Amino acid sequence: MPVYRLDLTYDGSGFHGYSRQPEVRTVQGELEAASHHHTGPIDTFVAGRTDKGVHASGQVVSFTVAAELDVDRVRRSLNRQLAPAIAVLDVSVAADDFHARFSATGRSYRYQVLDREAPDPFLAATTWHYGQPLDERAMNAAAACFVGEHDFASFCRRAGNRSTVREVRHATWVRLRPGLLAFDIAASSFCHQMVRSLVALCVEVGRGRVDPAVVPDILAARDRHAAKGAAPPHGLTLVAVSYD
Amino acid sequence: MPVYRLDLTYDGSGFHGYSRQPEVRTVQGELEAASHHHTGPIDTFVAGRTDKGVHASGQVVSFTVAAELDVDRVRRSLNRQLAPAIAVLDVSVAADDFHARFSATGRSYRYQVLDREAPDPFLAATTWHYGQPLDERAMNAAAACFVGEHDFASFCRRAGNRSTVREVRHATWVRLRPGLLAFDIAASSFCHQMVRSLVALCVEVGRGRVDPAVVPDILAARDRHAAKGAAPPHGLTLVAVSYD
Repeated sequence: MPVYRLDLTYDGSGFHGYSRQPEVRTVQGELEAASHHHTGPIDTFVAGRTDKGVHASGQVVSFTVAAELDVDRVRRSLNRQLAPAIAVLDVSVAADDFHARFSATGRSYRYQVLDREAPDPFLAATTWHYGQPLDERAMNAAAACFVGEHDFASFCRRAGNRSTVREVRHATWVRLRPGLLAFDIAASSFCHQMVRSLVALCVEVGRGRVDPAVVPDILAARDRHAAKGAAPPHGLTLVAVSYD
Repeated sequence: MPVYRLDLTYDGSGFHGYSRQPEVRTVQGELEAASHHHTGPIDTFVAGRTDKGVHASGQVVSFTVAAELDVDRVRRSLNRQLAPAIAVLDVSVAADDFHARFSATGRSYRYQVLDREAPDPFLAATTWHYGQPLDERAMNAAAACFVGEHDFASFCRRAGNRSTVREVRHATWVRLRPGLLAFDIAASSFCHQMVRSLVALCVEVGRGRVDPAVVPDILAARDRHAAKGAAPPHGLTLVAVSYD
């Protein structure tokens, strides 16, 4: 049976996260409802299960269906049916063993922080308005400690006994323009709330409340209480998923 | 009496334009209501009276008030009170003869067009989703005809017998990224619906329906019916106002 790949972007503001749940509006729920007409009931798999309020500009979904689909027709039909908050960038036939989640070899996220006093109406949905100036040099000193293979238990919401060891390939803060910072991070995969927890610590560093020199100790503690909570979800966007 | 200058940004989506009108939500109405507490009833003047649905990232407002204002306090207070769709970037004391509208020597606008099939949820509020590929080289050939001093009667909604002669200093289309075009235009001032009418014609050119070679004739006709209507307001943003 053919496997299909779907490339997706969404503004997560109005959703209770990506994953289908009863009674609430989710991206998966709307996507499966919109595709039902073409595919019948299907199970879809997603590369990154984004939390409530988190966005995606490069999400990937896969599904298997007996029917041969006209991919262009399905893409156009989905974009007509879906709410403006979700758009299908591409529908394509994938390799028989393709699985959006298990075939993925990397995920990249961006987190945006507005560190000026005045809000920005155009960024309100996608950017954390911190409102105070942050020192991105200190934040980059902190971010450099995350790169490599580490146990990120201090930055993960525990889910049973699953490993919290992850390999971070890249983690940097860039000032996009005066007042606006972005944190770009790439890893094989992330555990739950990891990016937002790393951002929360970096912001404390950028504010001068935590010395970047203690970041390795916080990482080494492997204790959720050693870190600084999590930054709000609406600043976070899943930007890309990579496959070999 | 001191004259104050206010620098402002707003997402025009939820407003019936900048200018105060009875019964409807306007930017000026909300701004004057929010500042009333500091200034009492005032008359404010604005550099560019944007239409319903049009945005601003660099709007300028001036007003005169007998009281000496603490500008930092007023700015913070306005940002606390105003809806998230409006933000005050700066409040400052201006020269005694400063007038946001009459002292302005130039205005710059940007108009964004998404010319790919798939919508972009993050741009839905600020970008015209045209949905078909446009040829920006042809559009730039059209835009070049606008530069200089011309009678733009073909591109203006008539308002009495007022002159429609304007001096366009700069007009170019740039591809910001695949699928996304921006039209940047600067002039001394603009007549009503001028930018959106120029955009509508350029888009017809970019689609191959109008030859850029006829654009000088359309301009020379000085007849509203010679042009191609107006592009939708939500793609337009007032970016900057210049003063000598």
